[in-house]
Amino acid sequence: MKINRHYLELQQSYLFTMIGRKVAEYQKAHPDNRVIRLGIGDVTLPLCPAVVEALEKASAEMGVKETFRGYGPEQGYDFLKEAIAGYYAEKGVELALDEIFVSDGAKSDVGNILDLFDADNTVLVPDPVYPVYVDTNTMAGRKVIFADANAENGFLPMPDESVDADIIYICSPNNPTGAVYNHAQLKAWVDYAKAHDAVILFDSAYECFVVDETLPRSIYEIEGAKEVAIEFCSFSKTAGFTGTRCGYTIVPKALVREGVALNGLWLRRQTTKFNGVPYIVQRGAAAVFSKEGRQQTMANIDYYRENAKILADTLDRLGIRYTGGKNSPYIWMECPSGMKSWEFFDYLLENAEVVGTPGAGFGENGEGYFRLTAFNDHENTREAAARIEKLLGK
Amino acid sequence: MKINRHYLELQQSYLFTMIGRKVAEYQKAHPDNRVIRLGIGDVTLPLCPAVVEALEKASAEMGVKETFRGYGPEQGYDFLKEAIAGYYAEKGVELALDEIFVSDGAKSDVGNILDLFDADNTVLVPDPVYPVYVDTNTMAGRKVIFADANAENGFLPMPDESVDADIIYICSPNNPTGAVYNHAQLKAWVDYAKAHDAVILFDSAYECFVVDETLPRSIYEIEGAKEVAIEFCSFSKTAGFTGTRCGYTIVPKALVREGVALNGLWLRRQTTKFNGVPYIVQRGAAAVFSKEGRQQTMANIDYYRENAKILADTLDRLGIRYTGGKNSPYIWMECPSGMKSWEFFDYLLENAEVVGTPGAGFGENGEGYFRLTAFNDHENTREAAARIEKLLGK
Repeated sequence: MKINRHYLELQQSYLFTMIGRKVAEYQKAHPDNRVIRLGIGDVTLPLCPAVVEALEKASAEMGVKETFRGYGPEQGYDFLKEAIAGYYAEKGVELALDEIFVSDGAKSDVGNILDLFDADNTVLVPDPVYPVYVDTNTMAGRKVIFADANAENGFLPMPDESVDADIIYICSPNNPTGAVYNHAQLKAWVDYAKAHDAVILFDSAYECFVVDETLPRSIYEIEGAKEVAIEFCSFSKTAGFTGTRCGYTIVPKALVREGVALNGLWLRRQTTKFNGVPYIVQRGAAAVFSKEGRQQTMANIDYYRENAKILADTLDRLGIRYTGGKNSPYIWMECPSGMKSWEFFDYLLENAEVVGTPGAGFGENGEGYFRLTAFNDHENTREAAARIEKLLGK
Repeated sequence: MKINRHYLELQQSYLFTMIGRKVAEYQKAHPDNRVIRLGIGDVTLPLCPAVVEALEKASAEMGVKETFRGYGPEQGYDFLKEAIAGYYAEKGVELALDEIFVSDGAKSDVGNILDLFDADNTVLVPDPVYPVYVDTNTMAGRKVIFADANAENGFLPMPDESVDADIIYICSPNNPTGAVYNHAQLKAWVDYAKAHDAVILFDSAYECFVVDETLPRSIYEIEGAKEVAIEFCSFSKTAGFTGTRCGYTIVPKALVREGVALNGLWLRRQTTKFNGVPYIVQRGAAAVFSKEGRQQTMANIDYYRENAKILADTLDRLGIRYTGGKNSPYIWMECPSGMKSWEFFDYLLENAEVVGTPGAGFGENGEGYFRLTAFNDHENTREAAARIEKLLGK
């Protein structure tokens, strides 16, 4: 028996382990002090009442023979796919129901989609990056190359015609940099993909944070994108579903490679290796799109946006350069005084008792940068911002 | 961009499509007649009250900031893993909590586990078989060979020392044949796997139907199995979770190949390409193991067992040979009068208005056989059995 030896090539990530250890040691040495965490990538507000009500109602239905649901369609129930199609229609994107695949989250699908591609493809990934893009390709033995995201390009790398990539990852609004591509920039990527016969894997998990109406929230707002892109989205950040698990993937029927529609391949993959999302969870997700659900989830997003604004305003006053914070829950700041990422982490922990995430943990280009998030509560965020301002404003 | 061309080698399965079409045509021609379906592979009884209560309680918790849960451990919450470990302890199997991986169902894991193995492995699959075992390996380009299950071996193929297999699928109680391996037979497979450095993928999805206490319900009841086998199980048939989605996979730490522990590889796979099962669903699954949950789910399984007995007793009286029906919800019968599978399907539909599943749809060795299931209700099962007896007893 031969194991998949590509697993042995994976890098161990010590980022969050190391953060946890450093914070624990600091707390142990200073047991009475209050450390504030702005490193959290998870939501903290509870599910909104409309969603909870739908979950409870669906749970009760499952206990009654007449309304019980067994195996559902692997691709998701129509009631949810129709709601998702309606959400896209508001962005001016028309989708057929069989172009929408309900999943247990973007993380699963971003990894599983790779089943559809040969190992012999070159994968282009931005640096810094969400580590899962690299790891899932390493596991399959694909060649991974990087596109530099840095201060010069506003952390929005543009296509390089001299580079030949087959599979391209784009995450916008970006994790970890918070940077957001505009229409013209995404159009350049769509054109590149067309010219190079490449496929774009577009991660729009943070689209709900976009407030600037001139910025695209779906790659399909770009003409021709349906012929080159698969889009992954999720209820995790939109509606606090990080522990409730529901997302969706769009595979347009116009996306054809080597004469084969990827929509049909993905349908075959999902019907063979997946059995659908719990009926209860799909009812909860559908409630996100009800009138009450929209209002309530938007109020939660506004809450996080206000946190982002508190942090962004603080950095503005300090004259520190950053991306994100406006159309993203992430603020990607330059470490002050030329400090390195981990150096600034220690400095901030020891002198302001605030925890963030060292940018170096997301790739080489992250060195010298630091990520703050908007997912803590108002009180903590305000207090952390005040401490940062006091420390760095000296 | 190169697609994974192995997808083009997949056979299209027309089994359930064809059944659906034939039944629809018959119903259209005979609109007033009542066709009874004994082809159902899905449960029909609702979730038990203990589970529904847990789902509702967890849903409510998710709406309150203090009890809200975001990202959970990808491998599942300890409260559920502890309950599963307790269930195994009753079978005499000791498991460490980090050998248990909670998943969204056995179908996902049976497919996803293949990520851990090189494409260059030979896969041994019984014939007839659950089609997913073959399709998931075809997608990855692995060589698939078959072990004949037939009347001669009681649909329980035994290892052939002259065959060199690296990955071996065993499903016991079996879908579709209902046949169950005993300890000695499973021991022979464990010994074969050891001698050939193979890994057994043991699908125990129907273990809860085993009433004969001399039969194993887990492969780990066999000495040495932890060094050769991964086990997949599910709440689908145990507690009616087919639409609620929860299962678990056991990867013992003693299972090492090429010097690498598969437990660590699977942990890496799941933490990279999966984000856990909904908290709500894990609470529902844990309730299956409560005192009330055990009583209530066992009552449901007894209900299905009674259906199986009605069908088995009918076939006994008719002198028709079959496997299953006693420790399995499936009854795998020989078609009478030497009829072929589809011939008998048509005969039964037209003359008794009963629908089953042609065995030929599960593999070459299924030709001449027919699958009945115990998942309809008592009234329909009794009526169908009476119609079958009247027709075939002539």
